[in-house]
Amino acid sequence: MDSDKKAAQRFEQALGEPVAGNGLLHRRAFLHGGAAFTGLAAAALTANDALAQAAAQSGKPPLSARTLMTQSTPGAPFSTYGTPSRYEVSTGRDFTFNAAAPGTGSSRTPHHLLDGTITPSGLHFQRNHNGVPTISPEDHTLLIHGMVKRPLTFTMDALMRYPTETHVRFVECAGNNGGFGAALPRQANAGAMHGLLSCSEWTGIPLKILLDEAGVDPTKAKWLLAEGADAASMSRSVPIEKAMGDAMIALYQNGERIRPEQGYPMRLLLPGFEGNQNVKWLHRLKVSATPTFTKDETSKYTELLPGGKAAQFMFTQPVNSFISRPSFGYDMQGPGLYQITGLAWSGNGKIAKVEVSADGKSWAQAALTEPVLPMSLTRFRLWWKWDGGPATLTSRATDEKKNVQPTRTAWLKAYGANQGYKFNGITAWATNELGNVSHVYV
Amino acid sequence: MDSDKKAAQRFEQALGEPVAGNGLLHRRAFLHGGAAFTGLAAAALTANDALAQAAAQSGKPPLSARTLMTQSTPGAPFSTYGTPSRYEVSTGRDFTFNAAAPGTGSSRTPHHLLDGTITPSGLHFQRNHNGVPTISPEDHTLLIHGMVKRPLTFTMDALMRYPTETHVRFVECAGNNGGFGAALPRQANAGAMHGLLSCSEWTGIPLKILLDEAGVDPTKAKWLLAEGADAASMSRSVPIEKAMGDAMIALYQNGERIRPEQGYPMRLLLPGFEGNQNVKWLHRLKVSATPTFTKDETSKYTELLPGGKAAQFMFTQPVNSFISRPSFGYDMQGPGLYQITGLAWSGNGKIAKVEVSADGKSWAQAALTEPVLPMSLTRFRLWWKWDGGPATLTSRATDEKKNVQPTRTAWLKAYGANQGYKFNGITAWATNELGNVSHVYV
Repeated sequence: MDSDKKAAQRFEQALGEPVAGNGLLHRRAFLHGGAAFTGLAAAALTANDALAQAAAQSGKPPLSARTLMTQSTPGAPFSTYGTPSRYEVSTGRDFTFNAAAPGTGSSRTPHHLLDGTITPSGLHFQRNHNGVPTISPEDHTLLIHGMVKRPLTFTMDALMRYPTETHVRFVECAGNNGGFGAALPRQANAGAMHGLLSCSEWTGIPLKILLDEAGVDPTKAKWLLAEGADAASMSRSVPIEKAMGDAMIALYQNGERIRPEQGYPMRLLLPGFEGNQNVKWLHRLKVSATPTFTKDETSKYTELLPGGKAAQFMFTQPVNSFISRPSFGYDMQGPGLYQITGLAWSGNGKIAKVEVSADGKSWAQAALTEPVLPMSLTRFRLWWKWDGGPATLTSRATDEKKNVQPTRTAWLKAYGANQGYKFNGITAWATNELGNVSHVYV
Repeated sequence: MDSDKKAAQRFEQALGEPVAGNGLLHRRAFLHGGAAFTGLAAAALTANDALAQAAAQSGKPPLSARTLMTQSTPGAPFSTYGTPSRYEVSTGRDFTFNAAAPGTGSSRTPHHLLDGTITPSGLHFQRNHNGVPTISPEDHTLLIHGMVKRPLTFTMDALMRYPTETHVRFVECAGNNGGFGAALPRQANAGAMHGLLSCSEWTGIPLKILLDEAGVDPTKAKWLLAEGADAASMSRSVPIEKAMGDAMIALYQNGERIRPEQGYPMRLLLPGFEGNQNVKWLHRLKVSATPTFTKDETSKYTELLPGGKAAQFMFTQPVNSFISRPSFGYDMQGPGLYQITGLAWSGNGKIAKVEVSADGKSWAQAALTEPVLPMSLTRFRLWWKWDGGPATLTSRATDEKKNVQPTRTAWLKAYGANQGYKFNGITAWATNELGNVSHVYV
């Protein structure tokens, strides 16, 4: 293996100048600097070389001596509906629930184990108030009534004939990113901290079409009550502007009919609004002049402020981001090249930029996965050469409306440590010289 | 219910002029012509009204008398990995296989039951040559050798540190859309005819990075052999330009690690190329000066031409489209408004337009779901007022390189009825006065 110092220097040069302190590299240099790798990579500690060296030091046979593992017996036959590999059983949702009411609680998307922007439907987070109902589409109807010219009841058969639209959109629980008011940083993985957040390709009927058919008087009707058919009758008030805007009756999730846990046979989708408002198992929409002040928007989902007052009807999820890898639970495998990747999103529209820091002082702009879509998870990536020393990795997102994530300190000052909703302060992971990654406050 | 003729006329006017014969309507008229529905919809046979009328005629209680179905008992508790509703068990893949070798055959995506553009991973089509192997990622390696400066063996741990990219791309079997040379149109659903076609969000490593690290001499190396670890050792030759272009080592599918049926722990992804070339369970890439002429590209996947000769290495899947709903197996529910929707795609890049006809003579341009991405499934939609008479629904896609689907007759003239690969002729569904939808040749 070529460990010549000159080769290492040439490799460093080909990668280009660092874009920020503590090893952050320009990603384009790697992707378009092909010549850099031809015969030089050995000196530069790519992942391949670092692991080959480790294997050699451990006394194991070198990788090149391994036999290619071709199967000697026929594989499994066909199936009507596929499942993940048996080697991925640990890629699941962790969940917590009320022991007296096992259907009341939440499960979380394991973002530290995922890549891309779509959340697999089987791993979409859940926040249920009395379990997942089993609803036959033949029995289910959607009622639109209240301040309308004619009340309408839609069967599923009827709805399936209406025009549909398709949009990739995140759904995030207002209580996501909780616990950052604690005195000491919680040691937990990215899914546990940010996993009440998922992103799907939703297909459904623009709600405006159905409301127009019922006939809404825009001078009097200002709100909509949306009610679910679950045992909790989860219900929320929605401003009529949103209902007549980009609201959707979602019937499909990632191509197939919406999953039971997401509201089968239908849910309300309010892009960018807190998850709780995207009422699942939707069966009733009542047009009204005022909010209904349901139990789900008075006893819960109000935002406690430092002075003891509470803010109500704070719908939009703020701009936010986190690094999904490296993150807590990931052990660095020795110095060398790594990808830093994570997710950014905003209820206000598109993500404009994500900056990453490895030293807490200097920031580099990460590459965003195209296409960047509004109210959608945006994957960011950056190259990093870890020198084996201490490093603190942070991300800071800005949306197209110029909203920027505040520091944790600034957020706590504004909202207080008892406010459990809509935290969007900057978060951080640190690695020590041993390569153990932990959660730290910055 | 208001059945006043004047109201019906006003509704028709509000919808705007038809955009092509036999009831094709301008979709924007529906979406932005809200006033058209206020109090007028009853006369216009929207899906709601048509079904309400049918219910009334059947003697069943009217919908408005139905009780809202709220659950009276707590729902199901949380789960680590979710599954579709029990009411959707029929949304599965049909499959055919060799009785002597149950792992040899194919399963198909049920497009007639889906909407949107992403294919759920559990419903991605399969074409396997000796079953689905069960591969432990700890044992699996990727070898790059042949005409390279230094052969490399990558463990999964090493690959997981490399830079990734995310792209939505279709994969289509070269044998998709087969059987159109038959004398009589086969009566089968859209999945059976066009279901060897799926679309996922793939995340993985640009192959160029790994080839650059191994060191490919561009003056001599012209081809790459890609070999799978399955019991069939499925292997194909790939032009080096594609390998150094947009080829990817795909590690994630729709956000989670790639499914066993799609190549876990990794597959080769060659956007726009026939499915067979996107080698699954990839474990070896050998750089060479010439194609390898493997069994999978000599005995199979060559394209028989009318004169008895065969074309080899015809990689790119042509521009194509089909209507997924209404389609065979769908029974129209009486005259009135319907959505026509389907999918279009091209291995040459983006879809530029999709035209739809309901009378076989006049064509209207359908709305395309944004964002339109290259080598991706593009959903198209159009509004249709079915008058209850005979109608023939066809779609015709054009890609950004100006390739247009030929008629079936033109395609058969060029390739002959024995050519089973890459059929992209225009296909059609017809409805009779009873609302039964069948497959017809046009």
